[in-house]
Amino acid sequence: MKDITLKEIASKLGISITTVSKALKNYHDVSDKTKNAVVALAKELQYTPNSFAVNLRTKESKTIGLIVPELVHHFFSNVVNAIIDEAEKNGYLVIILQSNESLALEKKQIELLINKRVDGIIMSLSNESNNDAHIREIVDRKIPFVMFDKIAKLSKCSKVIINDQSAAFNAVQHLIDVGCKRIAHIRGPINPQNSVDRYIGYKKALEKNNIPFDSTLVYTCEKVNFEEGKYFAEQIINEHADIDGIFAITDLVAVGVLAYLNEKKINIPAQVAVIGFSNWFMSQVLTPKLSTVDQPSREMGIESFNLLLEEMTCYKEGLVFTPKTIELKTRTIIRESSMRKLM
Amino acid sequence: MKDITLKEIASKLGISITTVSKALKNYHDVSDKTKNAVVALAKELQYTPNSFAVNLRTKESKTIGLIVPELVHHFFSNVVNAIIDEAEKNGYLVIILQSNESLALEKKQIELLINKRVDGIIMSLSNESNNDAHIREIVDRKIPFVMFDKIAKLSKCSKVIINDQSAAFNAVQHLIDVGCKRIAHIRGPINPQNSVDRYIGYKKALEKNNIPFDSTLVYTCEKVNFEEGKYFAEQIINEHADIDGIFAITDLVAVGVLAYLNEKKINIPAQVAVIGFSNWFMSQVLTPKLSTVDQPSREMGIESFNLLLEEMTCYKEGLVFTPKTIELKTRTIIRESSMRKLM
Repeated sequence: MKDITLKEIASKLGISITTVSKALKNYHDVSDKTKNAVVALAKELQYTPNSFAVNLRTKESKTIGLIVPELVHHFFSNVVNAIIDEAEKNGYLVIILQSNESLALEKKQIELLINKRVDGIIMSLSNESNNDAHIREIVDRKIPFVMFDKIAKLSKCSKVIINDQSAAFNAVQHLIDVGCKRIAHIRGPINPQNSVDRYIGYKKALEKNNIPFDSTLVYTCEKVNFEEGKYFAEQIINEHADIDGIFAITDLVAVGVLAYLNEKKINIPAQVAVIGFSNWFMSQVLTPKLSTVDQPSREMGIESFNLLLEEMTCYKEGLVFTPKTIELKTRTIIRESSMRKLM
Repeated sequence: MKDITLKEIASKLGISITTVSKALKNYHDVSDKTKNAVVALAKELQYTPNSFAVNLRTKESKTIGLIVPELVHHFFSNVVNAIIDEAEKNGYLVIILQSNESLALEKKQIELLINKRVDGIIMSLSNESNNDAHIREIVDRKIPFVMFDKIAKLSKCSKVIINDQSAAFNAVQHLIDVGCKRIAHIRGPINPQNSVDRYIGYKKALEKNNIPFDSTLVYTCEKVNFEEGKYFAEQIINEHADIDGIFAITDLVAVGVLAYLNEKKINIPAQVAVIGFSNWFMSQVLTPKLSTVDQPSREMGIESFNLLLEEMTCYKEGLVFTPKTIELKTRTIIRESSMRKLM
């Protein structure tokens, strides 16, 4: 008799494989109505989990690995919190490893997680990761795997991202809309895809508005922290008296910019308008309140775990899983630091 | 991932399991020809020795476990960073687990770390931990173990702490020195030793200065976050028109207090002086700059790892280790939010 798979039950009922699997395991977060429908159909089709899947299930560690570049950035700690919450709901423990932006450490940590037999891995790349050889190892070994935010574009795995290019484009377009003509960009390091994409977005916005691109207006962070924001703000002001706008790779850096400009009594936004990226809650507490791009960190964590869960479930049931890419929406948030027309 | 066993490699090559095992460990009594064949096949089959076997062989996993209540608090992410740096210098990987302030999760995570055979555990307690039964399990099982910041006073293990009582006493004494007579305290949750000690320090300072203790001036946080700071500041102002000082359990809460008072155009420090705790770098970026207590988070991480390393080394060499307690110095940092005499 032909083997009935979860996939067939799912498609017959028009629900996800994850839901079917959860229903059969009587998870609390599936409605009784759905459970009954799934169980009835499974019975009718004489569904029996194949031995391979059963055999694998006994090998589950019910732990997943999570590798992030650093936890001190609010964005990552928010994502981590969301992943832990989702994982807990589904009975998984999360092993967190911090790569400290080091490729060497990242590689060691991947090995560690594989040796510790985690059921799946969620990861955001370190700044040093300029190729995806070590990522390919995870994919080739068929370990359920999801990347978020700082991803390797070419890797054949699920990804949860935002459109950094258009988000950055919109942020810079906003600065242009409020009259900025000489806009500096404090960009992220050279490798990360998202810092490259934000830089491209910046250039495209200038181009579209016929503002000549000036490479001396681009400053590159190494540590992407508060101190670098202050440091580059000082350089920008000293080297470009005519500057009237600054777009920073992330709020933490933008906060350093505000701190320096406030210190020097340079009027924000009248003389220099500033916009950051990520919408850190602190950006609303500052004087002036910081304009930024809202980056849905919590949703990113939730989607990442659920994609991983779907892949882990398919894997357990011996089903083929096709990687998915989820792109989350962002929006430009206009606050005092760029609210020129309303001044 | 299907596990490849030595047995499968042995049978595929028609040699004994012992020979395979020896070949993989590069024993001299196995011919290079055999070694090459075994290694090549192991590679091809993606054989990974399971961690249990590795541990039995090397007796150490070169990984340590770190359990913290939450990573979103800068204090904890700073400690985590310091621990990872020290661990890496000494060839250890750090498995981080976040208890989300939950005792149940904390217990599960301790079990996980023990099962994953980490060489040692560093931990700061969750707010829910009101007894040290689960801690005793680690100690009784003779697993090298260090607690920091949020500790169980009675546990027989090494500890890295500050003197929360005297640190809080000094902070409140400072508010009194600048003329505050009606001082509210936004305290931490009921269980954690450090929030209890800071509360006692607050009371002792009032007592020493013959200021009557008024329990209605004490507000208790659950989440210890920015929002609670704003929320309690509003309550304090509405319920006590005569308030002239606020001591908050931590800077994140104090920042919420500043945000509310600024919003309501209440003069800081002239009408209400504010002091926080922990010396978050952001406390210097705010208007007004926040007075606080410097809590040496980085030193705390370094000392914690080094104490653990000392215990792990004794343990490996079969020596008796006597737990130590290291108390780090704190200092009151006076900034604009309480600089009354200089106004």
